[in-house]
Amino acid sequence: MIESPSNPTIKALRALHTSKGRREQRQFLVEGVRAIEDGVKAGYWPQVCLYNYDLLGRTERGRALLKTLIAQHQRAGNSALPLEASERALAAASDTQQPQGLVAVFPLIERTEVTPSEQSASLALVCDDIQDPGNMGTLLRTAEAAGVTSVFLTPNCVDVYSPKVVRAGMGVHFRLPLYVERTGAQIERDLRTLGIESTQVFATEAGATTPYDAVDWLVPSALIVSNEAHGLGAEGKRIAQGGRSISIPMSGGTESLNAAIAGAVILFEAARQRRVRQGGGS
Amino acid sequence: MIESPSNPTIKALRALHTSKGRREQRQFLVEGVRAIEDGVKAGYWPQVCLYNYDLLGRTERGRALLKTLIAQHQRAGNSALPLEASERALAAASDTQQPQGLVAVFPLIERTEVTPSEQSASLALVCDDIQDPGNMGTLLRTAEAAGVTSVFLTPNCVDVYSPKVVRAGMGVHFRLPLYVERTGAQIERDLRTLGIESTQVFATEAGATTPYDAVDWLVPSALIVSNEAHGLGAEGKRIAQGGRSISIPMSGGTESLNAAIAGAVILFEAARQRRVRQGGGS
Repeated sequence: MIESPSNPTIKALRALHTSKGRREQRQFLVEGVRAIEDGVKAGYWPQVCLYNYDLLGRTERGRALLKTLIAQHQRAGNSALPLEASERALAAASDTQQPQGLVAVFPLIERTEVTPSEQSASLALVCDDIQDPGNMGTLLRTAEAAGVTSVFLTPNCVDVYSPKVVRAGMGVHFRLPLYVERTGAQIERDLRTLGIESTQVFATEAGATTPYDAVDWLVPSALIVSNEAHGLGAEGKRIAQGGRSISIPMSGGTESLNAAIAGAVILFEAARQRRVRQGGGS
Repeated sequence: MIESPSNPTIKALRALHTSKGRREQRQFLVEGVRAIEDGVKAGYWPQVCLYNYDLLGRTERGRALLKTLIAQHQRAGNSALPLEASERALAAASDTQQPQGLVAVFPLIERTEVTPSEQSASLALVCDDIQDPGNMGTLLRTAEAAGVTSVFLTPNCVDVYSPKVVRAGMGVHFRLPLYVERTGAQIERDLRTLGIESTQVFATEAGATTPYDAVDWLVPSALIVSNEAHGLGAEGKRIAQGGRSISIPMSGGTESLNAAIAGAVILFEAARQRRVRQGGGS
């Protein structure tokens, strides 16, 4: 049993709280039964796993997951053997105020090439300069639910593998292809690879006269969502060049919407159009 | 100049950080130039106002607002005279880590009766058991942008006048009619007063077969948004009785959406239908 918060394993996990640590170790921290299950379901196995029975509580689910991990370790060897840790040690490893009794380390899921399987009916999301971790996680999770097929992130976005983004993303990191630290030029190329014409690249702009629901989302398309306070950054502007500006018509005194909300409204309109075309919906 | 964090005025402002203090004083705290401007624009004047020039910085906007408040104080007497406070004193009064140099106290906007002016084309939002302050503020702000005409909150919601909700709401408290601590029975009556038939009361439910865009949002309607983790509470269930369940069709492994996101998707579909009917949109 790992007792001390200064144990080397605990220190290594703490290092994953920082962007630098994650970049050096090429790993990220995942906390809680549900999120770790999401990883396992998607075919990823933890490289380190710590548990504490008292914190874990009497949930069947947590114990079942531990059994699965132990079995995988014994059978295939590609999953770490879960190690028991004291409450103090686990709390030190955890990024949350109230650790759930199970933390795991997964390898970063590093994608560099846009894969052909994503090309049918592409709906790409470009995150430009999104800096709030909660917002980023919520946006990614929402994008998946709306049927987004790949996500590109400019270098000035928050690190998507930070514990807060991972928490807010609720497993999306394991399921949705994320391309991180991508320059505007790379993303332009990626979108072309996905068969998205530049005229099907959309960005919201306050003064735009075309409402978001007046464009055709049935063909391969991309949406750029940017920082609510500052609008498009340099990379975002480059990608938006040659694309089209759209607006979300708003009532009342609100001047803008939160980035994740704006993304949700537009991406679910795309989903609605695609569903209606298939014969469902209104 | 107020120097000390233990000055009685500072203590009174600090008391407004808590729900108990707000309830006793019937006041709430608003921070920052923009949010206080929103109050003034909507016809409300601060009962206490503190500023610090160093924290306020060299913005024209902040100084212009101070002048407006002083002029109103001298002319009509219904606005407090802004008082200078030390950085330490202002930081103590503030709920934020980085106070903006201007804090004000406004009277709670207490509404008990649903007013007839809201009855045309009603789109009511019922918040049931929404407990996260950031989520609540974002939901309110989104509701206003989507054209919601009144908001009802069950007693188990977070206090909407808490500083975090006020911050995330970005002025919405001054503009959107909010009915707080409302029981299910009261809300049922309120919705009837607004001309909303019980069959036009919608709640999301995971298993529902009717997608949110397959219902008619053109007639007076209400949407119940509930706690993402726990679903409808007792009050929410009572209101939803006799209403209809709708779903947001989702792709991928996501099981649910954040409450504010789900609200945004549905309320903007209502807005879209209403706009399209008026001849705009697609």
